[in-house]
Amino acid sequence: MESTTALDPATALEPATALESATALEPATALESATAPESTRTTESSTRATVHRPAGPVAPTDAAAVALRPLAGRAVRLDPDGFLGRWQRRNATETLPHCVTNLERDGALDNLRHAARGERQRFSGKWFADSDVYKTLEAAAWWLGHADDGRLTELLDEVADVLAAAQREDGYLNSWFQLMDPEHRWMNLAVGHELYCAGHLLQAAVAAIRGGVGPRLVEVATRLADLLVDRFGGDGRLGICGHPEIETALVEFFRCTGNRAYLELAAGMVELRGRGWLAEHSVDTGLGGSSFGAAYYLDHMPVREAGAATGHAVRQLYLEAGVVDVAVETGDRSLLAASERIWEDLFATKTYLTGAHGSRHRDESIGDRYELPPDRAYAETCAAIASFQWNWRLLLATGRARYADELERVLYNAIAASTAVDGRHFFYSNPLQLRVDHDGTEEDAARRQAWYKCACCPPNLARLLASLDAYLASSGPDGIQLHLYSAATIATWIGDSPVELRVDTEYPWRGRIAVAVASTAAAGSWELALRVPGWCDRTPTVTVNDEPMDAEASDGYLRLRRAWREGDTVVLDLPMPARLVTPHPHLDAVRGSVAITRGPLVYCLEQVDLPDGVRLDDLRVDPAAAPIPVAIAGLLDVPVGVVAHGFVEPDGEQALYDTRERPPHARRPIDVLTIPYFRWANREPGAMRVWLPTA
Amino acid sequence: MESTTALDPATALEPATALESATALEPATALESATAPESTRTTESSTRATVHRPAGPVAPTDAAAVALRPLAGRAVRLDPDGFLGRWQRRNATETLPHCVTNLERDGALDNLRHAARGERQRFSGKWFADSDVYKTLEAAAWWLGHADDGRLTELLDEVADVLAAAQREDGYLNSWFQLMDPEHRWMNLAVGHELYCAGHLLQAAVAAIRGGVGPRLVEVATRLADLLVDRFGGDGRLGICGHPEIETALVEFFRCTGNRAYLELAAGMVELRGRGWLAEHSVDTGLGGSSFGAAYYLDHMPVREAGAATGHAVRQLYLEAGVVDVAVETGDRSLLAASERIWEDLFATKTYLTGAHGSRHRDESIGDRYELPPDRAYAETCAAIASFQWNWRLLLATGRARYADELERVLYNAIAASTAVDGRHFFYSNPLQLRVDHDGTEEDAARRQAWYKCACCPPNLARLLASLDAYLASSGPDGIQLHLYSAATIATWIGDSPVELRVDTEYPWRGRIAVAVASTAAAGSWELALRVPGWCDRTPTVTVNDEPMDAEASDGYLRLRRAWREGDTVVLDLPMPARLVTPHPHLDAVRGSVAITRGPLVYCLEQVDLPDGVRLDDLRVDPAAAPIPVAIAGLLDVPVGVVAHGFVEPDGEQALYDTRERPPHARRPIDVLTIPYFRWANREPGAMRVWLPTA
Repeated sequence: MESTTALDPATALEPATALESATALEPATALESATAPESTRTTESSTRATVHRPAGPVAPTDAAAVALRPLAGRAVRLDPDGFLGRWQRRNATETLPHCVTNLERDGALDNLRHAARGERQRFSGKWFADSDVYKTLEAAAWWLGHADDGRLTELLDEVADVLAAAQREDGYLNSWFQLMDPEHRWMNLAVGHELYCAGHLLQAAVAAIRGGVGPRLVEVATRLADLLVDRFGGDGRLGICGHPEIETALVEFFRCTGNRAYLELAAGMVELRGRGWLAEHSVDTGLGGSSFGAAYYLDHMPVREAGAATGHAVRQLYLEAGVVDVAVETGDRSLLAASERIWEDLFATKTYLTGAHGSRHRDESIGDRYELPPDRAYAETCAAIASFQWNWRLLLATGRARYADELERVLYNAIAASTAVDGRHFFYSNPLQLRVDHDGTEEDAARRQAWYKCACCPPNLARLLASLDAYLASSGPDGIQLHLYSAATIATWIGDSPVELRVDTEYPWRGRIAVAVASTAAAGSWELALRVPGWCDRTPTVTVNDEPMDAEASDGYLRLRRAWREGDTVVLDLPMPARLVTPHPHLDAVRGSVAITRGPLVYCLEQVDLPDGVRLDDLRVDPAAAPIPVAIAGLLDVPVGVVAHGFVEPDGEQALYDTRERPPHARRPIDVLTIPYFRWANREPGAMRVWLPTA
Repeated sequence: MESTTALDPATALEPATALESATALEPATALESATAPESTRTTESSTRATVHRPAGPVAPTDAAAVALRPLAGRAVRLDPDGFLGRWQRRNATETLPHCVTNLERDGALDNLRHAARGERQRFSGKWFADSDVYKTLEAAAWWLGHADDGRLTELLDEVADVLAAAQREDGYLNSWFQLMDPEHRWMNLAVGHELYCAGHLLQAAVAAIRGGVGPRLVEVATRLADLLVDRFGGDGRLGICGHPEIETALVEFFRCTGNRAYLELAAGMVELRGRGWLAEHSVDTGLGGSSFGAAYYLDHMPVREAGAATGHAVRQLYLEAGVVDVAVETGDRSLLAASERIWEDLFATKTYLTGAHGSRHRDESIGDRYELPPDRAYAETCAAIASFQWNWRLLLATGRARYADELERVLYNAIAASTAVDGRHFFYSNPLQLRVDHDGTEEDAARRQAWYKCACCPPNLARLLASLDAYLASSGPDGIQLHLYSAATIATWIGDSPVELRVDTEYPWRGRIAVAVASTAAAGSWELALRVPGWCDRTPTVTVNDEPMDAEASDGYLRLRRAWREGDTVVLDLPMPARLVTPHPHLDAVRGSVAITRGPLVYCLEQVDLPDGVRLDDLRVDPAAAPIPVAIAGLLDVPVGVVAHGFVEPDGEQALYDTRERPPHARRPIDVLTIPYFRWANREPGAMRVWLPTA
């Protein structure tokens, strides 16, 4: 470290070069016996017919107009000590059981039990609490595809029985309306969330089908899906939901069942949207309702005509996931283009550095172009998850690396930050700044909570993480693409020939990714495409079997074509210096500030890492001094921090507004340690900043 | 103008020096016959007993511990062509009738008529709509103190009859609870606004008493006030309102009636506050309710212990007005000090440049220290009015100029901006920035509306403006203090001797204020104190009868003591250059930006004043170039604009976030015309900025 350091010498900071000598990773194969996950290869190679169907979320039909396809089966096994594998494991051991406990405690499961017993006027929580149960079932089903878990199997079986008993004869199932307001079924689609809840049930059933678990759940879901077709299918009867979600669920259910009526219903809902249907057809059933207008529900402009991302962030993003699903399954290129236009507006002007979305608390909406306040970022966890889902669908549809870049950005920052290191506390909102004396009139923004009255986020995290392995790689017409990097074994096919790849990396802490062909039966050449992330602004180095190769990426991917043999090893090394990021000049809220990133990670500065007597808000960063990665140990499982050089400028007694020249301040140099944003607020509560004012 | 101008030459811009030769103002006395206002001197000098009682808002008793006192009677007559007089006149001819029309149209008056007829289950608007009626009655009563107006007299009489008929035998009066929910009287004080509505009725009655109009209204109010004492007075029965306002109303009613029970009830409410009473004692009556917690209602910390301004902005500010009223009437210095502590926190760290308060839309709350986003400023009009009321009370209590400075700032900027030039359109929220493509999911921030579903602001403006003359001057133990400057005649007393002052000024457009002693019967010397505003950072010049005087201000006032004689004339000339204002370094949201002010006025730049092809967000101001006042004509009644020098820097195709050095941009110089903030959004809707990024 070249610059003068004012850091407490007790904190062991070593130059990043020390990382090069880090302990070599042990082969992941040694870990297989750890918790006896179901061996996906064994399962799938035994039934060749199912081999080519992906076993995770988003499985386009053979007819779908997609550039890339998810890998067949449960192809990717994440090493449990790789970054993503550890996270997925924590989800299974902590977050998922925590969700079950809290759904029980808060009465969400009891609501369904009351409905099963035909009771009335008993209900706990939000009227859409069923969806929290369904998301948790979905998570359980995905995870049961990886590992035996008696409690999760019991959960699935018990709840499926409850649902079957609660379901009305015609297939209707919604505990709020059954218990509290049966007269108003389907009459308040703007606010009632009935189709939203139904969508989450279908998605749980999709996971059950692909995981080969919970047949009873699938029966219930099928009856409900058929009711939807019966009630809303066909001309003149169509309706839409105030909270989009049902669209992508119906398409996925179509993909699982082959019943085209579901796809057609989803397509009809996409077309109906934006024509004011909700305001015209929803009656006030006493659930409150919104004074926010049609854009809040995304019912202000037809999907094909909209050019700007707007309204409630989660709704906009879920809607777009469904739009892409419909577009690829119907081969509708103009519909896909409409979704890409929304994406361009959103990601060019309305996206936080962390990949989060939603600038406004009041209506949880996206906000204006360049309206991205770090302190008042709403940045809902569910919106980040929805963005991940949409970007994955766009990546499959187009093969364009920009979608993988956003997938990675939102995963490692906004999504990762939403959960505490213990896996049992969560942020609903993920701001990029917290002031010293934050006024928590609304919420305690400095502390993750164990649960929320509106508990949409924790089970949403659970279902994403339980299926996270499905998003690492894909197959194209003639090869395999790696999009996200974590230590893993990938067992897949080239044509009909099994291929196993072994990925070893300490990503995101180091940029070195080794991909070895562990076994192959494929004859002839095929392309192995390794993503070169958008954040990588220096040419990476690449070797194949230790031979240096041209590392020029093509459309964001390093594309290596050859007749791969067992033992072949590609090593991609992405230079990963720490960087200062400057914002677009129109981004008013962080003008005159820089942020620190390294690789895919956004870093932040917490008050707790400053010396006594130094207030975070008095810190200025020197934009001319390069930030320096440092090895740190024992701090929140973070091996690499970044040290920035700057100054402390106490504000003295300055006026809030001044017409006089402000006198130059006494300032003293300081080096400060920043940590990854995703680990903030895991120690004592205090101020935090992603954007640091410059000197 | 020295700098190169890119302004359309068609716009007539002249150097500010041209203002010096502006047409001399005609003596205001020539205007007296215009609309035959009731001559306050005549009225009051005929009844000597009432002469020494102020006839406007806030009239401390003789026993009150105040440093300054409002002038007796209706001492100030604003010239109708002075700045404040014109505004007050517009209020009477446009805003007040507009309020009456809209209260009729929206059913707020009908609610009371239904209650008078003993009907049930008929109600329009918000459950606290009575308060909008009462504020309008208050405005009418204040204005009838100035001018005959048959329609307003009829209104007062008719509504007083309706109220008398609607009032229950025990004195209860609240149309929402009477019509819709009589079982829950006083049971939901957190949300019900019953005491808030009662407070506004008392304030209307105070105006009626001081204006000598509407005796029937006073009877109704007295019965309700006595019910409050009966219901809430005494140990163990006390309650508080979720929306403070009743406190100041009770003290004012005590001041009018001499009934100390009202003061004691108000004092008890102030003491009870902040102990969680509302959460413990309020039942959910289906009005919704707030999940915002105790601070939202200002029930989180005892008033004497609170050190930070927090919670719902209007509630915090109304509460503090009541706190000061109680403190001065009970001689409680520690209570006054508690209010001054809140003031110091608020005005040092949580106040917009326009004097507005409230940084958050979601819960209409004040926000963190230095959390002052210009674009998402909530800055509610009612909060600005409440700030004005509180600052006036603090000014009387202490005589400190800092309160007069804030009185002026909020009046000329936040309050003035809330009404359109037509006097019939209003902003509820007063942001300091509007982006080019503002996403009005919530509201149309670019256009003032004729009325609001929650119509608290327009009638609040009406009552303030109808009594605006009362805030210009005060009397101290030994003289007269002028706080706000506008052309006016001031007829008051020094001891028992009548004195008439004549104020001539074009303030806020010019800094020259001439104060002539038009007549005097006072013997001996007394002090004439003229406020030297805090914005004035150059020594003003002063002459008395053309003799230069030492212009050193003492505690914000130029204090001139002598045996004043008829014809004596003081001319205070406040240098009024245009200024660039820089924000405190902790004020993140406007870092790297400057604002333009001149005198008490904040200026802003609107898209409509930029040449075709120049986008407001591409503008940079040169902080080294002094802004230049220019005479403008025919633009929204604004005689003085300010020209700033800067550059246009088109953003090109820059990334939202970038790790590379941004290339230097082609930029071209430009001079831009800024207009007073209070006149923004009176032409075609478009982008606006108060804070302009620097080059």
